[in-house]
Amino acid sequence: MSEASKRLTLRRLAIDTYRENVAYMHRDCPLYRTEGFQALAKLEVRDGHKQILAVLNVVDDDSIVGVEEIALSEQAFAQMSLPEGTLVSIGHAEPPESMEAVRRKLRGERLSAEDYQAITRDIADNRYSKIEMAAFVVTSGQTGLDRDEILYLTEAMAKTGKQVKWEEPLVADKHCIGGIPGNRTSMIVVPIVAAHGLLIPKTSSRAITSPAGTADTMEVLANVEIGPKPMRHIVHAHRGCIVWGGTANLAPVDDILIAVERPLGMDSLGQMVASILSKKLSAGSTHLIVDIPVGPTSKVRHMREALRLRKLFEYVGDRIGIHVEVVITDGRQPIGRGIGPVLEARDVMRVLENSPEAPTDLREKSLRLAGRVIEFDPDVRGGQGYAIARDILDSGRALQKMNEIIDHQGRHSLAPVGSLSFEVKSPRGGVVTEIDNLHLARVARLAGAPMDKGAGVDLSRKLGEPVDKGDVLYRVYAEFPPDLHFAKEQCERETGYRIGKADEIPDHTFGL
Amino acid sequence: MSEASKRLTLRRLAIDTYRENVAYMHRDCPLYRTEGFQALAKLEVRDGHKQILAVLNVVDDDSIVGVEEIALSEQAFAQMSLPEGTLVSIGHAEPPESMEAVRRKLRGERLSAEDYQAITRDIADNRYSKIEMAAFVVTSGQTGLDRDEILYLTEAMAKTGKQVKWEEPLVADKHCIGGIPGNRTSMIVVPIVAAHGLLIPKTSSRAITSPAGTADTMEVLANVEIGPKPMRHIVHAHRGCIVWGGTANLAPVDDILIAVERPLGMDSLGQMVASILSKKLSAGSTHLIVDIPVGPTSKVRHMREALRLRKLFEYVGDRIGIHVEVVITDGRQPIGRGIGPVLEARDVMRVLENSPEAPTDLREKSLRLAGRVIEFDPDVRGGQGYAIARDILDSGRALQKMNEIIDHQGRHSLAPVGSLSFEVKSPRGGVVTEIDNLHLARVARLAGAPMDKGAGVDLSRKLGEPVDKGDVLYRVYAEFPPDLHFAKEQCERETGYRIGKADEIPDHTFGL
Repeated sequence: MSEASKRLTLRRLAIDTYRENVAYMHRDCPLYRTEGFQALAKLEVRDGHKQILAVLNVVDDDSIVGVEEIALSEQAFAQMSLPEGTLVSIGHAEPPESMEAVRRKLRGERLSAEDYQAITRDIADNRYSKIEMAAFVVTSGQTGLDRDEILYLTEAMAKTGKQVKWEEPLVADKHCIGGIPGNRTSMIVVPIVAAHGLLIPKTSSRAITSPAGTADTMEVLANVEIGPKPMRHIVHAHRGCIVWGGTANLAPVDDILIAVERPLGMDSLGQMVASILSKKLSAGSTHLIVDIPVGPTSKVRHMREALRLRKLFEYVGDRIGIHVEVVITDGRQPIGRGIGPVLEARDVMRVLENSPEAPTDLREKSLRLAGRVIEFDPDVRGGQGYAIARDILDSGRALQKMNEIIDHQGRHSLAPVGSLSFEVKSPRGGVVTEIDNLHLARVARLAGAPMDKGAGVDLSRKLGEPVDKGDVLYRVYAEFPPDLHFAKEQCERETGYRIGKADEIPDHTFGL
Repeated sequence: MSEASKRLTLRRLAIDTYRENVAYMHRDCPLYRTEGFQALAKLEVRDGHKQILAVLNVVDDDSIVGVEEIALSEQAFAQMSLPEGTLVSIGHAEPPESMEAVRRKLRGERLSAEDYQAITRDIADNRYSKIEMAAFVVTSGQTGLDRDEILYLTEAMAKTGKQVKWEEPLVADKHCIGGIPGNRTSMIVVPIVAAHGLLIPKTSSRAITSPAGTADTMEVLANVEIGPKPMRHIVHAHRGCIVWGGTANLAPVDDILIAVERPLGMDSLGQMVASILSKKLSAGSTHLIVDIPVGPTSKVRHMREALRLRKLFEYVGDRIGIHVEVVITDGRQPIGRGIGPVLEARDVMRVLENSPEAPTDLREKSLRLAGRVIEFDPDVRGGQGYAIARDILDSGRALQKMNEIIDHQGRHSLAPVGSLSFEVKSPRGGVVTEIDNLHLARVARLAGAPMDKGAGVDLSRKLGEPVDKGDVLYRVYAEFPPDLHFAKEQCERETGYRIGKADEIPDHTFGL
């Protein structure tokens, strides 16, 4: 068919297809059959110098797209940046050039820094279909990335987004690889470190598969959706902040790859390191404490895996100019007592307020981590960080700093815990020998967390504590009866607790 | 949020999203934010016993979907099979159960027959997103499938579609793994074998990445889009047919996986064997000749790879009850002279008509393959097949049979070759020592094949033939000036021919 007849009228379709450009063509469009487009075909839509790639969807409704039109999904239309009504040419698309590198990876080869840059650039420019993105993610996870490839991917991802500059020689940060319910140390570490005077502009994530992220929990107390400019004001005024990182456009390709990895349940160590460090590099962090909890039901289950991960963090960190210190922590059970945004915010405030009800483990872990961050300060002697952190917390200066940050970010009035609840009781007497992180996270999510802020789980017993038959192990809170029902069903199948003898508690040789 | 408020009104959206169910929700829909659906989130849409999984797209246009509505893509709506306006419940979806097996495969494990059945069933039921399908395809290609896994996948894919039953003890078939332009032996083998009296109901494919498939070439002569019932009439009347296999719903999961593999340029041996044999099993074939061409620019480039492939075909074939014979053939150059539907149909008819212009290699290869098929007949002595096939061809009985089949399928009036053309000439004298299959296929496609039936390439010289400087190597035909232009550009970069001395021709030790 002639070139002139390969032109269609551009139209915008207000459908958000995430990072996959989609082009909609009418089934009766003359181009559709004559060009022999296949299922999952990729088209090239072009006009002069502008050119995008898009996956084809076929439409049987004139009101969505006419037979002489080509409609583009929102992202694709924005990228084309031409007015509706423009005549554009349509043709078969070649795969994006960097797919050649992905195919080499599929054959088991090692890729170069240039390959990773080309791949992340094409992904950032929406040139990859979901199938192509999945191929990259799966093959990187499966063939594995060697430590130089992790470095290349980290640098390449950091380059795809904004680069924050703080114009200070020391920008502190901390990060936990996740998997432990209730582990809200950042909200205690940040005010302590900021009160000490180090710069700690903390951007946090919302929960993806957990019952609460730091951003969800901080949101119980204050506004966290804060743009780059107001964030800068807050940090300059108080030396710290705790905001949601989603507005900053830091390493956006990392977010895209995570969105692909999540439904596959993939979690390769290499991708984890590249994901975390690309975000930190973009955020302008210079000194970073990484918390790796190890335990039978946490993300990292064996000490040898934790050590391998530590080496990877150190190797990549050194080469991208971030001073990384890895702390391997006890991940055998949840930290604190509450699980879910409101309950976790309560625990955090109890620690900051030096309340007698403050959970000891949350306080101690936060102090140790804050101490390690404070030791980044060249004026602090090695080994003195913990004592400085404890002084700041005990004196109320951490609480005061937290209140300043909350007020500046925008204080929220306190939300109550869920109005519905039930108790889970011990079927026998003994000592708590195991607590299943995954079970408790699941129960809290079934109860409505993190969307229903007051939903969650409140633990009455922790590892090593004695229980009598019928003692309450934990209480589950929900806002709505069906959620309560689902959570209850789950708890009737199993409590997530094991009650036995004191000497059955798995050894904890990790230490800080 | 309460269960009652998680209900939306069902609406059909006439968008064909291939095998991925898509659900469209308005950005202002109260469910969208409160449920915290993520990018690429998967929803469960349900009503009583009916339940489907769908990937979420977010819409900013009330005319596509209202704030209280949930719209489903065509396939998803059909699967839900409820009237528009029904109130349906929406929730977060768990991944399909068989994804657990895919995750085990991602970790490098071997899967069981039950795993493959669960996976193919979920794919057939549109429960997989494109990301999940890609993960399965990539991991199967990369981790590799052992021969039992290939067997399991073959059986599982065959079960997902229709099973054709012929009620005869011997149903013959032949299949080439592809990659050689002009290789249209089926259109000669079928009439010879049918004339001998064996049942050979041939279903063929259209070109995907090649300049012509058997279905495209047969379509020059006759209608090939024939439903199962009329096909049965034709086969009963003439013992054979040559139709497009796309209407028969044979092993549909194979088509889905191919659609995912294609954009990734993947071609693992295991997936190839499972793909071919699942289709043959569904088609009711009992005896099959597989043609594996080997050459420097064909799909299989080394004899050792061809032998490995042969063992896999034999292993799986024996276990699914198909008698498979593998024939390794000369894949160093195109077969026949024409490349493209009209030109290939011309070659086929010249062979059947015993024309002096008939390409010898196409005739000889077809006779050898037909001979092997005929030897499946228990009444034929081993080694006699070739002579029987030659007698049938030379006597004109094959041509007569072909004409019967063409008339019954519906004869097409002959299309001309493309009206535009140019010649590619030899830059020096000598002997043809190499012909690049990939280059010639690409030129023919650039010229418009297979969509423009008359477009393609007509070879004047084959391997081993002498040429003088300025002699025509081949002529390229097109219908439209831009296509001719693109093809010409490609030929100006390289001819695809190598001219040298006779002793430089790579050895051909494959033999039939």
